[in-house]
Order: sequence, then structure tokens, then C-alpha cells
Amino acid sequence: MIEHAPKGLDPLLDQAIEAIIRRSSFSGFTETGSSRVHGEEKVAQGRRDYEALLGQQFKIAREAHFEHAERFHEGEEISPYTGERLGIQYPIFNLDEQYRNAHAAMRSWVNAGAEKRTEVCVQLLKDLDAQAFLIANAVMHTAGQSFPMAFAGSGANALDRGLEALAWAWGSLNVLPSEASWTKTFGGKHQVTLEKKWRIMPMGTAVVFCCASFPTWNGYPAIFANLACGNPVFVKPHPTAILPMAIAVKVLREGLRNVGFDPELVQLVVDSTDEPLGKVLVEHPETAIVDFTGSAKFGAWVEQHSGNRPCYTETSGVNSVILDSARDLDAVLDAITNTFCLFSAQMCTSPQTFYIPESGVSLADGRQVSADEIESLFCERIDQLIQDSKRASSVLGCIQSPATLQLLDDWQRRAESGEFRLLRASKPYTNVAGDHCRTATPLLLGLNAETPITEEVFAPIGFIYRVRDRDHALEHASAISKKHGALTTYLYSIDEEFIAKAEESFAWAGVALTTNLTGVMPLNFSAAYSDMHVSGLNPAGNATLAEPSFIAGRFRYAQSRRPKGDQ
Amino acid sequence: MIEHAPKGLDPLLDQAIEAIIRRSSFSGFTETGSSRVHGEEKVAQGRRDYEALLGQQFKIAREAHFEHAERFHEGEEISPYTGERLGIQYPIFNLDEQYRNAHAAMRSWVNAGAEKRTEVCVQLLKDLDAQAFLIANAVMHTAGQSFPMAFAGSGANALDRGLEALAWAWGSLNVLPSEASWTKTFGGKHQVTLEKKWRIMPMGTAVVFCCASFPTWNGYPAIFANLACGNPVFVKPHPTAILPMAIAVKVLREGLRNVGFDPELVQLVVDSTDEPLGKVLVEHPETAIVDFTGSAKFGAWVEQHSGNRPCYTETSGVNSVILDSARDLDAVLDAITNTFCLFSAQMCTSPQTFYIPESGVSLADGRQVSADEIESLFCERIDQLIQDSKRASSVLGCIQSPATLQLLDDWQRRAESGEFRLLRASKPYTNVAGDHCRTATPLLLGLNAETPITEEVFAPIGFIYRVRDRDHALEHASAISKKHGALTTYLYSIDEEFIAKAEESFAWAGVALTTNLTGVMPLNFSAAYSDMHVSGLNPAGNATLAEPSFIAGRFRYAQSRRPKGDQ
Repeated sequence: MIEHAPKGLDPLLDQAIEAIIRRSSFSGFTETGSSRVHGEEKVAQGRRDYEALLGQQFKIAREAHFEHAERFHEGEEISPYTGERLGIQYPIFNLDEQYRNAHAAMRSWVNAGAEKRTEVCVQLLKDLDAQAFLIANAVMHTAGQSFPMAFAGSGANALDRGLEALAWAWGSLNVLPSEASWTKTFGGKHQVTLEKKWRIMPMGTAVVFCCASFPTWNGYPAIFANLACGNPVFVKPHPTAILPMAIAVKVLREGLRNVGFDPELVQLVVDSTDEPLGKVLVEHPETAIVDFTGSAKFGAWVEQHSGNRPCYTETSGVNSVILDSARDLDAVLDAITNTFCLFSAQMCTSPQTFYIPESGVSLADGRQVSADEIESLFCERIDQLIQDSKRASSVLGCIQSPATLQLLDDWQRRAESGEFRLLRASKPYTNVAGDHCRTATPLLLGLNAETPITEEVFAPIGFIYRVRDRDHALEHASAISKKHGALTTYLYSIDEEFIAKAEESFAWAGVALTTNLTGVMPLNFSAAYSDMHVSGLNPAGNATLAEPSFIAGRFRYAQSRRPKGDQ
Repeated sequence: MIEHAPKGLDPLLDQAIEAIIRRSSFSGFTETGSSRVHGEEKVAQGRRDYEALLGQQFKIAREAHFEHAERFHEGEEISPYTGERLGIQYPIFNLDEQYRNAHAAMRSWVNAGAEKRTEVCVQLLKDLDAQAFLIANAVMHTAGQSFPMAFAGSGANALDRGLEALAWAWGSLNVLPSEASWTKTFGGKHQVTLEKKWRIMPMGTAVVFCCASFPTWNGYPAIFANLACGNPVFVKPHPTAILPMAIAVKVLREGLRNVGFDPELVQLVVDSTDEPLGKVLVEHPETAIVDFTGSAKFGAWVEQHSGNRPCYTETSGVNSVILDSARDLDAVLDAITNTFCLFSAQMCTSPQTFYIPESGVSLADGRQVSADEIESLFCERIDQLIQDSKRASSVLGCIQSPATLQLLDDWQRRAESGEFRLLRASKPYTNVAGDHCRTATPLLLGLNAETPITEEVFAPIGFIYRVRDRDHALEHASAISKKHGALTTYLYSIDEEFIAKAEESFAWAGVALTTNLTGVMPLNFSAAYSDMHVSGLNPAGNATLAEPSFIAGRFRYAQSRRPKGDQ
């Protein structure tokens, strides 16, 4: 499918296709936002562009769409960095009118054909990239990501995931010919020849729900997969993180208009916690596709209520670390500390449960490090990381939601009351961005395996299980993953037999396994074009980034046929 | 995708792949069951094999599975040819045990790999073909198809659709490599190389619902798509047409055991009208995939209640014929008569509504044939066909369900009471198979466009609309198709502009359009490897035979990765 995707449409697309085929490393965009690369001015301009939006109505006079807003509504956006409301007021439209506009915009987009649409989509990705600094600032001040993460993870990496989805769409749209001649003999002697034609048809308006902590990374793939297949898109951001997607919508609309298409192909739908539109959108008769990234709870509701609409979900699960044995324990502890602390564990791939056998962890040289010692070394490593406030700021970033602080508080209190062992208390750390940052260092709790954590606790909380032995860890982690959902497991073992067993076990649980990774790469880095993200094999979601199942269902074929010579 | 499906596994599979790529005519099986081709003995043996099953417990001593049946239950099968109960008692198993057995059988099937599974599946198709005469008799005496149709349509054509699905599965399973090396530089200088592996994982037990009138044609594709992707299959036949699928299940189980796999990979689940299992199966936590062919009503329920299970449906809709103009009116009338009468309109692609402009139909020579005249010519053609009882028997076959006779009765009575124009009354015809055949000639009713038929009326009833003009016909037919579902439209017009308009209109309605087809080929013949069956673009179902979306969702990838050199 992907090998046969026609080349030559755009070099960037060609490179993406090549990377997908080889599952090799590639980025079509710049991952670093450093002023050493881009110059001070560009960095400063991004900040100024962001600041210029604060307290204003989010609109662009040139866009007819924004002129017919029914009203403007202030988002529930409070910067985790400044503690201040963004005060941006977003346009609210008449929803039925939005569906009508989307429907009207669809026909010329579809009739333009897959090639033209794909070409335009590549350009739109470049347009988004051109706003990388603005979008990074918007992500920082809504999601709470550090600037490096906002620039790389929510910028280049997200655009790469978008380009990956686009490449798969392009491949999928080219699987079959658009016409063919067919001859068959009936009744032994009557030859019939038909000329057949197939058109690629869209499903209709797709609703793309974006999450609060990482809106672009799953948002872009869904948007581009839908657009390439001919479907108009409604972008529905989380009420506390509207800005990054509002900017993206604006960029996409301008880009579409620039090349003569109706900007209504991409529309923003803003709602609020008090008046949520999620269920209305999922069940609306004009919604043809649902893409959802967010909580497991609402994700399950979406899956149950999408009816016959194709529905692509990424929710959350309980990711685990299993410690069996190690060659270099220091490197292992560094790796799990860094990844656990990364963006304060507010990533869908952040580890949450840590398994340590009662007997401790064996080292290659035959020594055995006790479970107690592992726990205290882990705590020390976290303390070390946080002492360096520049590094802590870059790694931990800020806490997106006050609800996360509440969770930390609740769990810490339960531990203090003796329910669990309190291994490491959480408290704020000093972010270099200032005193108003909403921060929290990780909380570490000691649990026994009889108190399983069966859902993602969206906070920097590590639950450390003392388990009978490594097999117990394997059984426990894979059973919970299969039943309640998980995306990833990080395993450390120097026993090939055990590693093989773990690979088998987590494959059946549908969990991506990373074994013995140490060093500079974050354990949970999921590379576009290479790593599959979300298996679809457990309740953590069904939207794999990216393989053909992420595209299938977004377009279908309409056939017509007539006898040869009839025309 | 399909171009890159590895060749050489089996010549039959290679030919199927080639046909799919070219969308050309191909059959891997013999379409004629004639004794001139096969010899008298083979034909007679098929009948004897069928008769030997009557009144017996359906079991095979060699199969352990059938030894632990909880009880045997007589199917609700009455031969439309003899009017007699088949009296076959089917085994009923403990459902939970069936799921456990399926689950246990899955692991070695999955671990055997895609290549082995596909190879076995090709052999299983050949095994089914070896029972072609027995299965054709079973289809005749449950579905009521004529022998030629039962042999071709429910035999070779169904096997071809199965092979087509298998070829797509094989292609899909080979889209991506199973391992790759990946190198990326982090932090400007740290090179990380990971060895990545991907396993193809099944979803779990698939439930395949088969319909009463054409059980194998949709059943085989679903069964083989599921098996190839690693999923065990429960076959759930309609209570009035169990036998064809029970035989198929038996053949598949024996074939699996012959090559060392657990026969529990394919299991029969029999229920009854009084104690239906459909909803239980769809909502069972162990059901991972649902394939459904049957009524629009239950199909909609299935779509709404499958939750996050991939769900592939083929239900029904309102297929139409639009008459605008013709070069050869006789040929047109023959074509629509033959196709409308075929299997007494009990096919999902049978036409149901006929649009005639008030002003009649224009001929190429400038003459205008009035609507009245068209109607009476259509009635005459049907009468002519039925007069030849050998031909009528072969074309019309029998009526599968007494409910169909009831429908005929109801609509005829409504017409007699003046609600519609009664153009042609239905009555039994003499089938060459004898006096006990359940037969009915088509009923033709005249309606006005304000009384739209919005669902499939599962009976040989033609609803003739007098419409203002051809554009009215187009609007009416495409709007009903989009809203209520339709699979096909048959158009006759000599105006290229109107044809182009119809192509556009029905493409957006998701209806396959056949234009100006006359001659020996049934209008509704849907060729494996070439014609797409069910668009997924309207409520008539979402399971296209066959393209990648029919496979996507039946398997997923499990990833594992570790640093290079770690092993």
C-alpha cells in the first residue's frame, strides 16, 4: 500500500513515505526551538505574537467565518506559567450552520481529487510549521509544557505524526485504480465487457476532539487523515486548552483559502465545562467520523455512542515499569527517573506503576540490590533532578490542571493516613519562569499488588508495587493492561528468557514494550514513521498512529459501470 | 498494498491477487453444477449426501467438539421445495465453554504466522469447493434458491468472494515489515539505535451472522478475513437456514484438524426464533469482532451496540431502476424483468422501485413510449418468463420464508383496496420441482412519489413510481438511498449529460450504478475481485466486499523495541 503510493507530489511527502516503509528515523520539521538555530528575533516574535492574542477576541477580519459568530466566549484558559487567565474570547457559531457550511465546502474539495488534496495538505503542514513559535507559546501557556517540549513534542513531532497520517492516507487513496475494463463470458458464449469506474468518496464531517495536555500531537494526524480523504473537520479543543488548536484552525483556514478552497473545511467548535458539546457532537446526525483523544471515561462513552460512525480513540491506561535485573543500575534509574518526571507524568505514555520484586533487583555482577534500596535510590534520583531548577523546569514543565494538584493532595493524604507507604512527598518546585508557575514534584507511593491501580491517575504519582517475583510482575502488569488499558511498558532485565516471556505477554496485552533502554532518549519517545502508538488491543484506545487502520473508514468507494461501447 | 502481497504461496491466491489489481474477471471455482461438466454421479451424490442428513443429529463422531454438545436442537428449517421440515437437530454447546475453546485455539493459530494461516485458508476454500454439490442442495432446501443459483451464486461466487477477502487480508498482513532498525540522534550528538519488532495480533473471537436467503456469499468473506487475521470464528446462521453454514463449519473444522490446528477455531452457534442469541453474542465481553448480514433493523441495532468492537454490516436498502430513454427498449425490458425476477427478488441487490417519467420513455429513434405502455410491457415480460416453467424455476426459485408470502398478501390487499394501482397480481407458479414448492410470481404496484418506500420490502414486489420527469426520479431515488440505504441503481438513458448527472448523484448517495446494461448478464451480478459490494456510504451497511476497510480492524500490531547490541 505505502510502497505504491505515487512519488513526486512533494519531496517532503516522498521522504515520509520512505521512512514509513523502512520504519526509519525522519523528521520533516525542526525539533529545536533554540535561538542558536533560529535567532533571538524569531523566538521573541513568537512570544510577542502569543502575547498579542491575550485578552482579545480571537478573530481575523479577513475570514468571513469569524464575522458571523453568534457571540464570543472566553475560554477557561489559565496559564500554568503565570497563573493568569489568558482572557481570549473565542467565537461561538451556530452549530447547524457550521455543519451546513462544512457540507457545502466538501463537494469542491472532493472533486479536486486525492492528489490535489494531498498536495494542499502538505502545504498546510508547512504553514503550521511556519507558526511553530507562536503555537509553542500557546501550548506552554495552556498545557503547561516546557518550551523545549512544546516546540519539539507539540511542534515538529506532532507535525511529523500529521505528515505520517497524510502519507498513509495518500497510500490508502491509491490502493485501487479509478477505472478498469472487465470481461466475462456468461452462459458459455456471451461475452460481456463493462467499463467500471470508482470514485473516492468522503464520509462527511469529522469531529476531532483534542486533549488538554498534548492537543496537537493527536490532533494533527486526525485532521490530516480526514482532510486528505475529503472530509471537512470540526476541531473541538478542550475548554482549558483552546488556543493551540484555534491557531491551528486559523492557519489551516487561511492556507485553504490561499489555494482557492473553502476555509469552512476546517472549523473551530468551542464549548465550556458548563455547557459541554462533546455528546452533542458525537451523536449529531451530521457527524460522520469521530476522532477522540482524552479521558478513558469519556472515550468509552464515545466508543459506545458513535453508532455506525467510524470512531478513532486514544484515551489512557496504566503504563508500567518492571525491574528485574540490570547491567548498569545507575543508567536504569536515570532513565526511569527522567521519563517519569518528563512533563510531570502528564503524557499518555508516562509510566505510572513500578514493579520491584520483593527480593530486589539483580545486577549483572551477581549482586542483589534490595527493594528498599531501589526505592530510596529512585527517590534520590528524583530529588537530584529537581535540585537543578533549570533542568527541572525543562523536564517537568508545569501542571496543566488544578485537578492534578488535587489528585496529588488526595493520594498524599491517603498515604499519610497509613493506607500506603509514602516514599516521596510531592511539593512545588521553583520553575525558572517564576513564582506563579503551577508545579509539583512527583509523589511516590508504596503499594502491594492486592491494591491494583486500574486506571490512569493523571498526575505525577508513581505507584511502586512490591511483587513476589518478576513473573508476578509480568502477570499483574499484563492483566491490568489487557483489562483496563495501557500503552507502554518499560522492562529492565538481563535474562533473555524472561525478556522473551515479557514480549509474548505484553504482545497479547497489546502494550508496546521497551526493553533495557537507557541514555538520552526518553523511554516514552514515540517516533513518527516508526513507532506504533496505541495498539487498539486493549481499552486504551483504537487509533494506531499510524497504519492503514487509522485511515480505513475515512473514505469509501462509489462504483459505476456500463457496457463497453455504450458511450 | 495488494500489489505487494507476496506471491508464490498458492497459484489460486496469486491469480486472485492479480485479478484484484486489474479488477478483472476471474473465478477460482467452477460456476456450473451441470451434469454435462461434472457427470451425473457427482450431481446425484450431492443430493444423496444432503438427503442422508435429513432427520438426523448433525454430528461427526470424529469431532470431539460435537461430543460435548449439551443437547441437540431441531432447526426451524422447512424446505421451500418440499414443504417438509428438514428435521436436522443441531448441537447446542455451552456458550462460555465455546468462547474458552476459541480463546485456547487462538494462540497456536496466531503463532503459526500470517503465511501459514493464509496457506491453510486457501486449502479450506478448496475443501469447501469439494462439497459444492452438498452445499448447493443445502442452500436450495433452506434458502429456496434454484439449483443453478445455489451452485454458482452460493458456491463458486461465494468462494470467490471468500478468496477475495483472503487475498486482501494477505495483502494487509504484509503491508509492514516485522522488524526494523532505527537510529536517531538526540541532543545533537547522542546516537540511539533501537531494534524494533512488530507482531500481528488478532482481536479475538469474531461472530459471523449469516442471513437466511444467501448465507454463504457474505459468510465466507467474513470467515476467511477473520481466520487469516488470527481470529477464531463463531458462525451464527439464521434459524431457518442453518444447514449450509453447519456443513461449512464442519468442513472448515476438519480441514483445520487435518493440518494440525485446533478445530475450535471455527464453531457453530445455533439459536432459535424463540431464544435468539444475537444480542447476547454482540454484547458478550468475549466477542471482539461482529460481522452481520441480515435485516436493516437488527443491523442498525448491531451497529449501535457493538461498542468498541469492529463491526462489519451488510443489511438492505431500496434499490431502484430509473427509465429515461433507450436504444433498444425490448432489451431493457428483458434485462429488468430477468433481474427483478431473479430468485424472486430475494437478493440484497434486487431492484425494488422503478421510476417512469409521466411522459414515458424516449427511444433513440425519437418515439416516446408512454408510461402506461411501459408498465404493461413490463407485466407482459414477467408473464412470458413465468409461462416457461423450466425457465421460471431456474430464474425465480422458491420463496425462502412464509413471511414473504404474507408481505405479498398484505401489499396486494392494500392495492386491491385502492391504496395503490395493482398492475400485476402475484400468485404461485408451477416449479418443475413439484407441487409443494413455495413460489410466488412478482407483484407490481403503481405508486406516486409522495408514498415513498423507505425500506426494503423483502418480497418480489415492484413499486412503480410515476415521476414528474427524470430529474425527479434522480432526486427521489438518491435521497431515499442516502437516507434509508440502497446498494444499487439501474439506469437506462441515452443522454450522456443525464448519465453524468446520475453518476454524480448516486456516488454521493453511495449507491453502485449500472447504466444501460442489457443482455445475458444479470444486472445485479456483483463480481468478486472487481465489483465493490456495499459502499459504506449509506445505511445499507458498511462492509465493502472487498477493499482494505473490510480487513482493517481485524488485526493490530504489538510493538517491542530494545537498544541495538543489548541482546
